[in-house]
Amino acid sequence: MVPIDRQALNTRIVERGKELYAAIESEKPSLFQEWRWVGKTMGWLLRHEELRTDALRFIDVFPSLATPPILIDHLEEYFGSSVSLPAWLRWTLRHASCGGRLATTVLAKTVHYTMRKLGRQFIIGESANEAVQRLSRIRREGCAFSVDILGESVLSEAEAERYGTLYMDLLKALGPARKEWSPLGAEQKTNDLDWGFHPKFSVSLKPTSLYSQGRPQNFDGSVEGMVARVRPVYEKVLENGGSLCIDMESYQYKDLSLEVFKRLRAEYPAHPHLALAMQAYLLDTDRDLAQLLDWSVSHGLPICIRLVKGAYWDYEVIRARQNSWDIPVFMSKSETDAAFERQALLILKHHPTAFLACGTHNIRSIAAVMEAAKALGVPDHRYEFQVLYGMAEPIRRLLARITGRVRLYCPYGPILPGMAYLVRRLLENTANQSFLRLVFADKMDILGLLAEPSEAASERGAVAGFSGKTDRGPAKEGIHEGCQPGRFLNEPAADFTKKEERSLFAQVITVVRQEMGKVCPLFINGADRTTRDILPSLNPADPADVIALVSQAGKAEVEEAIGAAQAAFARWSKVESPVKAGYLRRAAAWMRSHRYELAAWQIGEIGKQWDQASADVAEAIDFLEYYAREMVRLDGPHALPSPPGELNQYFYEPRGVCAVIAPWNFPLAITTGMVSAAVVTGNCVVYKPSPLTPAIGRNLVEAFRAAGLPAGVFNYVPGRTEVIAEYLINHPWITTIAFTGSTQVGLRIIENAATVRPGQTTVKRVICEMGGKNAIIIDEDADLDEAVPAVLVSAFGFQGQKCSSCSRVIVLDSVYDRFIDRLIDAAQSLPVGPAHDPAFVLGPVCDHQAQTRISGYIDVAAVEGKILYSGKTPAGSNYVPITIVGDIRPEHRIAQEEIFGPVLAVMKVKTFGEALEWANSTRFALTGGVFSRSPRNLNEAKMRFQVGNLYLNRHITGAMVERQPFGGLRMSGLGTKAGGAEYLLHFMDRRVVTENTARRGFSPDLL
Amino acid sequence: MVPIDRQALNTRIVERGKELYAAIESEKPSLFQEWRWVGKTMGWLLRHEELRTDALRFIDVFPSLATPPILIDHLEEYFGSSVSLPAWLRWTLRHASCGGRLATTVLAKTVHYTMRKLGRQFIIGESANEAVQRLSRIRREGCAFSVDILGESVLSEAEAERYGTLYMDLLKALGPARKEWSPLGAEQKTNDLDWGFHPKFSVSLKPTSLYSQGRPQNFDGSVEGMVARVRPVYEKVLENGGSLCIDMESYQYKDLSLEVFKRLRAEYPAHPHLALAMQAYLLDTDRDLAQLLDWSVSHGLPICIRLVKGAYWDYEVIRARQNSWDIPVFMSKSETDAAFERQALLILKHHPTAFLACGTHNIRSIAAVMEAAKALGVPDHRYEFQVLYGMAEPIRRLLARITGRVRLYCPYGPILPGMAYLVRRLLENTANQSFLRLVFADKMDILGLLAEPSEAASERGAVAGFSGKTDRGPAKEGIHEGCQPGRFLNEPAADFTKKEERSLFAQVITVVRQEMGKVCPLFINGADRTTRDILPSLNPADPADVIALVSQAGKAEVEEAIGAAQAAFARWSKVESPVKAGYLRRAAAWMRSHRYELAAWQIGEIGKQWDQASADVAEAIDFLEYYAREMVRLDGPHALPSPPGELNQYFYEPRGVCAVIAPWNFPLAITTGMVSAAVVTGNCVVYKPSPLTPAIGRNLVEAFRAAGLPAGVFNYVPGRTEVIAEYLINHPWITTIAFTGSTQVGLRIIENAATVRPGQTTVKRVICEMGGKNAIIIDEDADLDEAVPAVLVSAFGFQGQKCSSCSRVIVLDSVYDRFIDRLIDAAQSLPVGPAHDPAFVLGPVCDHQAQTRISGYIDVAAVEGKILYSGKTPAGSNYVPITIVGDIRPEHRIAQEEIFGPVLAVMKVKTFGEALEWANSTRFALTGGVFSRSPRNLNEAKMRFQVGNLYLNRHITGAMVERQPFGGLRMSGLGTKAGGAEYLLHFMDRRVVTENTARRGFSPDLL
Repeated sequence: MVPIDRQALNTRIVERGKELYAAIESEKPSLFQEWRWVGKTMGWLLRHEELRTDALRFIDVFPSLATPPILIDHLEEYFGSSVSLPAWLRWTLRHASCGGRLATTVLAKTVHYTMRKLGRQFIIGESANEAVQRLSRIRREGCAFSVDILGESVLSEAEAERYGTLYMDLLKALGPARKEWSPLGAEQKTNDLDWGFHPKFSVSLKPTSLYSQGRPQNFDGSVEGMVARVRPVYEKVLENGGSLCIDMESYQYKDLSLEVFKRLRAEYPAHPHLALAMQAYLLDTDRDLAQLLDWSVSHGLPICIRLVKGAYWDYEVIRARQNSWDIPVFMSKSETDAAFERQALLILKHHPTAFLACGTHNIRSIAAVMEAAKALGVPDHRYEFQVLYGMAEPIRRLLARITGRVRLYCPYGPILPGMAYLVRRLLENTANQSFLRLVFADKMDILGLLAEPSEAASERGAVAGFSGKTDRGPAKEGIHEGCQPGRFLNEPAADFTKKEERSLFAQVITVVRQEMGKVCPLFINGADRTTRDILPSLNPADPADVIALVSQAGKAEVEEAIGAAQAAFARWSKVESPVKAGYLRRAAAWMRSHRYELAAWQIGEIGKQWDQASADVAEAIDFLEYYAREMVRLDGPHALPSPPGELNQYFYEPRGVCAVIAPWNFPLAITTGMVSAAVVTGNCVVYKPSPLTPAIGRNLVEAFRAAGLPAGVFNYVPGRTEVIAEYLINHPWITTIAFTGSTQVGLRIIENAATVRPGQTTVKRVICEMGGKNAIIIDEDADLDEAVPAVLVSAFGFQGQKCSSCSRVIVLDSVYDRFIDRLIDAAQSLPVGPAHDPAFVLGPVCDHQAQTRISGYIDVAAVEGKILYSGKTPAGSNYVPITIVGDIRPEHRIAQEEIFGPVLAVMKVKTFGEALEWANSTRFALTGGVFSRSPRNLNEAKMRFQVGNLYLNRHITGAMVERQPFGGLRMSGLGTKAGGAEYLLHFMDRRVVTENTARRGFSPDLL
Repeated sequence: MVPIDRQALNTRIVERGKELYAAIESEKPSLFQEWRWVGKTMGWLLRHEELRTDALRFIDVFPSLATPPILIDHLEEYFGSSVSLPAWLRWTLRHASCGGRLATTVLAKTVHYTMRKLGRQFIIGESANEAVQRLSRIRREGCAFSVDILGESVLSEAEAERYGTLYMDLLKALGPARKEWSPLGAEQKTNDLDWGFHPKFSVSLKPTSLYSQGRPQNFDGSVEGMVARVRPVYEKVLENGGSLCIDMESYQYKDLSLEVFKRLRAEYPAHPHLALAMQAYLLDTDRDLAQLLDWSVSHGLPICIRLVKGAYWDYEVIRARQNSWDIPVFMSKSETDAAFERQALLILKHHPTAFLACGTHNIRSIAAVMEAAKALGVPDHRYEFQVLYGMAEPIRRLLARITGRVRLYCPYGPILPGMAYLVRRLLENTANQSFLRLVFADKMDILGLLAEPSEAASERGAVAGFSGKTDRGPAKEGIHEGCQPGRFLNEPAADFTKKEERSLFAQVITVVRQEMGKVCPLFINGADRTTRDILPSLNPADPADVIALVSQAGKAEVEEAIGAAQAAFARWSKVESPVKAGYLRRAAAWMRSHRYELAAWQIGEIGKQWDQASADVAEAIDFLEYYAREMVRLDGPHALPSPPGELNQYFYEPRGVCAVIAPWNFPLAITTGMVSAAVVTGNCVVYKPSPLTPAIGRNLVEAFRAAGLPAGVFNYVPGRTEVIAEYLINHPWITTIAFTGSTQVGLRIIENAATVRPGQTTVKRVICEMGGKNAIIIDEDADLDEAVPAVLVSAFGFQGQKCSSCSRVIVLDSVYDRFIDRLIDAAQSLPVGPAHDPAFVLGPVCDHQAQTRISGYIDVAAVEGKILYSGKTPAGSNYVPITIVGDIRPEHRIAQEEIFGPVLAVMKVKTFGEALEWANSTRFALTGGVFSRSPRNLNEAKMRFQVGNLYLNRHITGAMVERQPFGGLRMSGLGTKAGGAEYLLHFMDRRVVTENTARRGFSPDLL
């Protein structure tokens, strides 16, 4: 192959670009034609940047606004206070929202008309027949197409099946229709192929729309599930003489889609018309593409690649940043453009085996493909151009004229549920860097747009201030001088989209398995201690499986531990804050380098799923890193206002020996949080782990040992609760008790701590997080695509064994049926089994006692309400069926008592106000959630939903350190807010020192 | 009289100034002659500004450093780390502090030598004989003198008497000596008068040195006491043919001194040689001077005025700023200089009746007096010049040469106790604006120094950023919109140096007296309510005197109040923070405009002395103003870190109904603090006042009523503790309990609150301040002039009935005798009697029960230790003698139990470490104090003295809102720190709201 002179090529690309541009200069896509409805709307959006969010949000919620009054309410809520609205619209809106019948009718009709118009712009039709008609017209206009079916998110296997049926129906319509169509760009009408080489229709699909249970951590299982579902559709495509494109959605499914493509391609080696969409904005794509092309060559399997730039940039950035993962996309538009040209070139170079579908509206990118193909001598039938339906008609027409090979990407489906697609397109076209906007609306200088894209990061990243990398490296080892803060960033949990993480984790689980079953000693005053009293800790999924043989502390050992802590306090309390913080950061570093091992212990001892276990370890690291920084921030003395001659200072100081009583459900995270807060503030700790998770508790001993924490500062005393718990709490030397657990136990601790005992010199302080009875409200305009999975994960994640778990869902009447149907379908799809196998989303509950208790509640539920769904459980111990129970009212036990298992009460209400009232009707007030797209109701909830942590439009578990300080009110806790800026204050006392700095009438501040 | 052309006069002044300057240009005062010890020291001080504070502090502490090792320790502590020391001194210091015997001896000797040299510079002699010798020499050199006796502060009548004896002894020596002296500047040697008109000697004295009990609030009594003490000295002066000058000290005694002067002057009309010092830097002096001159004319009593600029500028600024009083001095040097010229001119204008002694070293001021006298034709014998001994020899010589009439102000007394005077002189001469420094050390341009002083505020004030006025006006009435914060400033207590305040207060006491004895109703849900059960509230000084007939709430009324509060909560909790803050600020405004009445109620109902009552009212206003601002600051939502697509917000919210149980000892302040904190955070309050102070509690009802607080938000239920207290606390609707009182009751409340009762939905929170057993440590280098009165006021102020009162004083062995002697003398001097009479510093304790309890402790004290002093008590009820008991050790009850009366335990220790250990040896940890001038020991105390509020080198009561957040540790309280930035947080819950702001992958923060 002739090496390409890049500079010369660029010159030709620019020239070609100019020609292309000149040919369309006078045209405008309908999108920007202001005499059309859609153009008006776009123009308005472009002129009123300040309303763009509200407008897009309104379009998003619009399909759920079932009646004119609801529609008007939302219009009023979104735009009522806006001065940017046209006068007539403001007037109408005001009259409509005051109850004007005529105005309401007119306005509702107008809005509906506009929305359909907008939808029609991008969506080819609402039924298969309508679609076929429109597609025929497109073909008559000389363009090919690929059709894609729009719909709600697929949340369950039932929904996946229905989606599959839609594809089958479409194919049944396309098959016969195709026979009516003349092939495009071909002389011989007898040939059934367009341009002599391509089937006359193409269908695009996302594997996730046909299989609802795809999850990166269960890679092989997910691939198998997807292939199994795509195969029949593919076969139907082949049967009807079409082609198929595997679409690419978000990054988390990228490797799965690649694998599904390869499997299917290999399975049908004779059919080269299987395409895969690849996204140039992904950092991975250069590598992925090279490997795929190699694979194609080495397997002798020609492939098609639809190269696009990628449409989920915002989503990917948000998801990565929220999880502290590396951002998978280029942060600048020009890097993506450069990648697109680079990757197109690579595919064209492989033209003997690889067919390129160039999917872009950018004239520069199109010109680049044309010139590269020319320079490389790629034959016409080895590449084509694709544009989106409704987006760039002038470009489409031009390409059809010049190349003859243009394919329109045509979504079809009911327009209202298709609004999500519409929003994406509107967002794309109103973005500041949208090529179409720049050319057709902003009339930007064409030479600038045709310039060679830079491969260096540039404006977009710079403007937004993001970085693709988190700025925290591992804590430096061996720096005993203390903590070098820097900004706190949440520790990322394992990203199972990465193959390395999956396989490493699987390996480590096997290794740690070998470590299990050994003796677990106490740790007192810096030394291991065994006792004769040994209790085994068991695998909840298999009670015969002993995780550890745990030495049990008796009163003597507890006394010894308290003595060691008290003795260590004299020195530890005087250690400077940055030095104390340094121990925490070193413990964090140790945990970071042992994160797989630590997660593996949780899988074994308490049955956490892979992602849950990994998140728990990350949270433990967060507590260490965050509290380390917090203590440096709180390090005194703090200046108080001081007039001349007086110096007032405020000191935070430790309290003494602190008892930590930890729960089993976040066995490392919550323990580490309480212990590290106590330790870093200068207290010494006696820690009693839950009898269910002593081995995980022991992990913290290792972390602090590795950090070099002085002897006696942290003491670990697993033991029988009935023997040592009250002894520990009531000991006169205990000044502070940190507890997380049930309300019942918490209240007893509070009561015990309030009694002053002989020898006690300090009023005990209790830092206490207790139970919850958490509700999620589903408003009538809720986005069920998000609400259903969020309720699912909130209610059933880790078998509902979180204090933050959702145990009530309060649903507005009008949305009840749709929500419940989808929820049950989704619940039914969840695979249940032991946690070590990542195929399972749910596992057994913590022990037999819990199983019995929860089963008892299910019996109560059946009496009080109506069991709407009861899941299947695998054979083996400690499993409880997922249970959804309807007809529950506030007075029911099921609505009032904490169950701590996978049992969800469903409550039906008439109004949002009633929903809030019911939500607030328990003595608990820990977490809560609302799914609504009504600004007014969201605000109402913000003000009136009385819980410590309220989540709007998302799941209600998984509070992040610093971002979501965690803890409840009423009987749910004392409001101490773990992981927040006020938490450490609870472990400290305050001293004020006032110095008279004046002597003989002179003072340094007046000298 | 010829009107003076000001401009022409100024020209002549400048010319005269130039002449004067030219005549002394080549000379240097010995102070700045670097070949002399004192000049070396001064030069070093001027070169090393950074050490000036330490150097002056070292000189201050030096007299108390009894042995070479202690001296070396202090040198090391003050200068050990300084690099500014000369190399040889650093070397010696290092060797000495490592225990080098020779180095220690050499260094100690060197320091002693230097100090004496420094002292000798300014002090005429150490004994009367030595003084007379030196004074004779001065006269031989052609100068007159006025002699002043230096000494420690006079803290007791015994000390005052000894001071008086010193004056008598001096006069006994001067009388005969004078006969040996030829008159100055007179031809006829037979005339016994200098210059033919002035006695041959002058004595200066401060009235406060002869009478220890002078207090502005007891104006007449103080004047009488002072006159009675000065009279015999004055008579002795007259008898010996001398003259007397009444010196002026700090502003608080200014009016007293003026009055003493006028009384004495009127008493001895035939003797014109009574002088009064007046200070030009006081804002009052223009008025005072004019009035005094008028008085002199109208009474036909010629007078002498020593006009000085004033030497306590720093002290006055510090005192005023610490008390939020208007600063009584000019803030700029030039304003003072202008005032001096103006006032000198006025005196000179009155030369027929007023003699001017011009006391300044400033050549411009001297020239101004000379030229003004010339312009006015004042005869020579109607004015003289005065300079300080040892300060400005060239000027003295020049003035003697030109005018012949120069008097040296000559302090005499033991050099070491005179160090305070030395420090003042060194401070004056090293100040940036010192005239002598500018002329002789800095060699500043003379024309600038001779310029006419500006009367506008200028550099000094501007540089220091002070303002003579506090920047808070009264809260604006009628602004219902809320609180307009501005910076918080403590409310000033009444300044009884002001005649208006004294007389107004006395009047109001009489008026309020008429209001007493009436019915005091409950206040529930915005309305007064009486009950049949009535209990009288009594005057502690006279149990027959009924202050109020108080309706007693029973359980029914408490239930009703709780119900009203609960009902009001629904609305009150939603009121915006600035609006809630507005109610507090209006209540504060009401209190400010009723401050005398409010204080008068305290005098009557609980026996607070004038100043104590006024301070309590000011503190109540502080709480209202401060918490109002705090709530505006805390008003949310507060932003939490949020990645894109997520919005995290932190809200503070009220808890519900709050019970406030208040004490009687700060009956308005503490009540207002707790109630206003609860109210402004959005809670509703049921307030039970102490049965001893229900009428004062009722005052708060009036304040909130005047502020328009909505009904039900604040309810007032006085009642029998045994009937309603537990009912209130245990009520299930009470969410929060704010209590201040004894540890015994506090612990019972904590225990009660920890028990969850039927119907209760929130874990109760207790905000609790309890007892103390507070110690002050007297280190061996303590400044007893400050330590003794501070211990006195801390231990016996308000009869020791403060939780912050000092009840133990821990004294280092080496200083024990001196301290105890002075303490007992001072205690003995305190007048005891009913609080309405401002003559009394101490009054009765709160009631008969308290009297019995405290008397019981005195019996215990007599057994456990040795009664060192037992005061006298007046006839009448509820008095307890001031009791000082020695030989107390930590194990004694008197060292461990809170007595809450005027009983002080004295403990003797060997080392400072032992003192700290003993101080920390109780279960209380509220306040504490240390008097020490050792930087190391002060720092040690700062770190190790475990109390909530530690005070270094000052009294330990009277914590100020904002500056000294108040509250204790261990069994003294829960560390909630009233009046601090964290206090309101205890009355609130925290909610976190997390909103998923992304919809369909787009988020406003990424758009």
